[in-house]
Amino acid sequence: MRIQIDVTMNYRFLQPNTVFLALEAAHTDGQTVLEDRLSLGPAQLTRITGDAGVGERIWARVPDTEMHLTYRALVDVTRPDPALESLNAMPLHAIPGAVAPYLRPSRYCQSDKFLMFVDKRFGDFSGGQKVLAMRDWITDELSYVSGSSGVDTDVLETFAGRQGVCRDYAHLLCTLVRAAQIPARFVAAYSPHIDPPDFHAVAEVWLDDAWHLVDATGMASADDMAIIAVGRDAYDTAFMESQSPAELLTQTVQVTQV
Amino acid sequence: MRIQIDVTMNYRFLQPNTVFLALEAAHTDGQTVLEDRLSLGPAQLTRITGDAGVGERIWARVPDTEMHLTYRALVDVTRPDPALESLNAMPLHAIPGAVAPYLRPSRYCQSDKFLMFVDKRFGDFSGGQKVLAMRDWITDELSYVSGSSGVDTDVLETFAGRQGVCRDYAHLLCTLVRAAQIPARFVAAYSPHIDPPDFHAVAEVWLDDAWHLVDATGMASADDMAIIAVGRDAYDTAFMESQSPAELLTQTVQVTQV
Amino acid sequence: MRIQIDVTMNYRFLQPNTVFLALEAAHTDGQTVLEDRLSLGPAQLTRITGDAGVGERIWARVPDTEMHLTYRALVDVTRPDPALESLNAMPLHAIPGAVAPYLRPSRYCQSDKFLMFVDKRFGDFSGGQKVLAMRDWITDELSYVSGSSGVDTDVLETFAGRQGVCRDYAHLLCTLVRAAQIPARFVAAYSPHIDPPDFHAVAEVWLDDAWHLVDATGMASADDMAIIAVGRDAYDTAFMESQSPAELLTQTVQVTQV
Amino acid sequence: MRIQIDVTMNYRFLQPNTVFLALEAAHTDGQTVLEDRLSLGPAQLTRITGDAGVGERIWARVPDTEMHLTYRALVDVTRPDPALESLNAMPLHAIPGAVAPYLRPSRYCQSDKFLMFVDKRFGDFSGGQKVLAMRDWITDELSYVSGSSGVDTDVLETFAGRQGVCRDYAHLLCTLVRAAQIPARFVAAYSPHIDPPDFHAVAEVWLDDAWHLVDATGMASADDMAIIAVGRDAYDTAFMESQSPAELLTQTVQVTQV
Repeated sequence: MRIQIDVTMNYRFLQPNTVFLALEAAHTDGQTVLEDRLSLGPAQLTRITGDAGVGERIWARVPDTEMHLTYRALVDVTRPDPALESLNAMPLHAIPGAVAPYLRPSRYCQSDKFLMFVDKRFGDFSGGQKVLAMRDWITDELSYVSGSSGVDTDVLETFAGRQGVCRDYAHLLCTLVRAAQIPARFVAAYSPHIDPPDFHAVAEVWLDDAWHLVDATGMASADDMAIIAVGRDAYDTAFMESQSPAELLTQTVQVTQV
Repeated sequence: MRIQIDVTMNYRFLQPNTVFLALEAAHTDGQTVLEDRLSLGPAQLTRITGDAGVGERIWARVPDTEMHLTYRALVDVTRPDPALESLNAMPLHAIPGAVAPYLRPSRYCQSDKFLMFVDKRFGDFSGGQKVLAMRDWITDELSYVSGSSGVDTDVLETFAGRQGVCRDYAHLLCTLVRAAQIPARFVAAYSPHIDPPDFHAVAEVWLDDAWHLVDATGMASADDMAIIAVGRDAYDTAFMESQSPAELLTQTVQVTQV
Repeated sequence: MRIQIDVTMNYRFLQPNTVFLALEAAHTDGQTVLEDRLSLGPAQLTRITGDAGVGERIWARVPDTEMHLTYRALVDVTRPDPALESLNAMPLHAIPGAVAPYLRPSRYCQSDKFLMFVDKRFGDFSGGQKVLAMRDWITDELSYVSGSSGVDTDVLETFAGRQGVCRDYAHLLCTLVRAAQIPARFVAAYSPHIDPPDFHAVAEVWLDDAWHLVDATGMASADDMAIIAVGRDAYDTAFMESQSPAELLTQTVQVTQV
Repeated sequence: MRIQIDVTMNYRFLQPNTVFLALEAAHTDGQTVLEDRLSLGPAQLTRITGDAGVGERIWARVPDTEMHLTYRALVDVTRPDPALESLNAMPLHAIPGAVAPYLRPSRYCQSDKFLMFVDKRFGDFSGGQKVLAMRDWITDELSYVSGSSGVDTDVLETFAGRQGVCRDYAHLLCTLVRAAQIPARFVAAYSPHIDPPDFHAVAEVWLDDAWHLVDATGMASADDMAIIAVGRDAYDTAFMESQSPAELLTQTVQVTQV
């Protein structure tokens, strides 16, 4: 599937500022970036490799108190939607060093607290079928409610509160999967099927020696998403981190199938 | 039912100490204390009224570095086991001032986080039937595992962890009930059916203008429990609070039907 | 000091609603309510006694989807500003049953976590001088920043974050005082010196067998405040609790010295 | 400095188990492992690269219900103790992709909550002098108390509680440093000066384009430590993680200067 991405961001700062951006579609497996153009004026950009070597992040030094950003890209998503039900979990001793950190809890995903729940509720399943059972459970149990969570909401609150937005769905899926000793990471992505259009967040799980995208909100699928960045949880993939208070002027995200 | 209670507690302190005790069967509705005798030597005792006017607590000034306590009581439990399924929740405006605080969250019971879960899972029930559905859900979902929780364990952890001891069962029941706008308080009690014998903790819910005991562990019932103290959660009913580190030497709790 | 209080509140609900109100100046020690008039149309009101017997709360059944409230009162504040530095802490065994609960942690005030800090920082002080040292420390260390905290902010976050509004100042003072084994409760109040004008929150500490108001923000003092309600923390004294989402239309609080 | 490390670990499991071990001195910059020998019988070992490419971790499949491990190593620590006071923080845009994740909060280190405190307390310092001011502040404010923290203790509790063991000191230092926009990671290490002898934990900070070890407990220094593993916090560097309950039979750690 070919998708076109158009982002505009306009922010005001109290003072000249360095911001950390993660918003470009990654040049990574399963997707081909045919064209991309980031325009950010006035600013000096330094590109660095993203977490786990996926994509690039940008340190942008903004000499002024306003930042005007446009990003346009054309991406071919070449990966198929995985048949998760036929994929196997790896035995622990076959999990490589680059993947093992994604077995562990993180700032928002206290997976160490969920061992018993996961064993009770999903103990009869294994591998991709276990992941699917978790995804379906989340879809059933959570309500998607805009504004129902904030930057401090962690997975203990989401699990009790039974509502959230895409970040919370992805946090809960990562948490349950990790609690079952299957590596899971948090993924920021673009998809044409997000309503209202916005940055999206999903999980990626490690089965049969590879990462596979899973969206617990049901809005996107692996074959229509362009990955931006991966990490342990939402803190690692924020589209913009600012060193000082940032006032949102306008922001638009448009993703269309072309 | 007539029950006999025998408690011995022996503690060592670093220095002379003031401890706060809540361990005597309360002279309160539904139970008649026929005999009771607390021996605590050497110590000076000051009795004060317990939370919500239930029972007494004791400030004990221990002039030495050891405390040796024995407590023996004979109690007739006269309350019946309530037919919860036929009791009604009170409309909010009929909840009196002395009861309203038990609608609110507390140190260990963040009931404000559970509104959506309670609505989804138990929204079809009302009154006593709702409380019973919650009790049964807890009985099904939690595993009673000695040592699986500690003094810091709150209900968010218990809900995710799906295990605990009586305090955690009672915390979770109080939390779910409060999230349904029904007052619930935490109760420390004695019962002959606790295995291994120990202080016990249950919930009390406000239905049809009265408090009713409910034990989510299933070990005790309203007609075999002697209430010690009530409060918002375990912090309010600790059998002993010490101002300095206390080393447990020996402690026994025996409760027998006579 | 005589103060006049004028409050208007206009809220919209999704459906007919029962709200819990705590906004009338209490008929309690240290203040005389000369006149007061609450108008809340259309609604049926049920008054109940406030926590600790201080003031009244109101269950208001609003049959419509809008609530329009006006409250006007004239109050003589007759209590003097206490000379805290000359007041003594009570020995624990002299703390009565109605006061003892305010030694304990609560939903937002995890005072059990602060024992060592309080001992290290304030161990050289006692009684009212200790409370004053805590108040001054908070005044020095915290920055008053509107919007810097929310309904979920607890005292662990405030202590690390070093900013907040009046509720956070009061939470931190209650927490430190309780950690020093001195009872402290949370108080909602009116004062003419709040800028911008709003409901205010302070602490009340138990010294020499009585409660004494202390404002860590420095904006108000005991002799210019009209107490509305007391409790363990902000959850117990919310000016309005709604059973369903409430949209603020307009709200004004005016307090003037007359 | 040349140090000799001797570790014995004997654990009993409920069933055959896969454990994750991080206990070998890393073959990494600043230290030369002259000899090392791990004996773990009976078990099948799979070595993987440690977090950030530092050292190796081991998946050990233990076919029996007991694990007997001995580890002996001889290590030359060749790095000098850094003159932190003369080192500079890097501007954000010069922080590379492999280092940027260590600017962010983690499971135990909610550095996002400490921005204001760090600005107020340490805002006058910069670079290595800021790190030293933080280290000295921690040394002054915290008390080293064995058993005062547990596996659930996070930095919000440590900051309020003002006590802990080496993991808590390292968590707090990592947290404060990250809150000042300087990368910091958690390091498990051996040092001959730990009393009582045990695995040790310290922080590593990114100054002048390199990592530098800092021990807030004051027990060890960069020139006497052999690094085992690095990560975001204690969860990433646990010396042993077990998939099922593990009973400690005996464990000894001896580190001597030779």
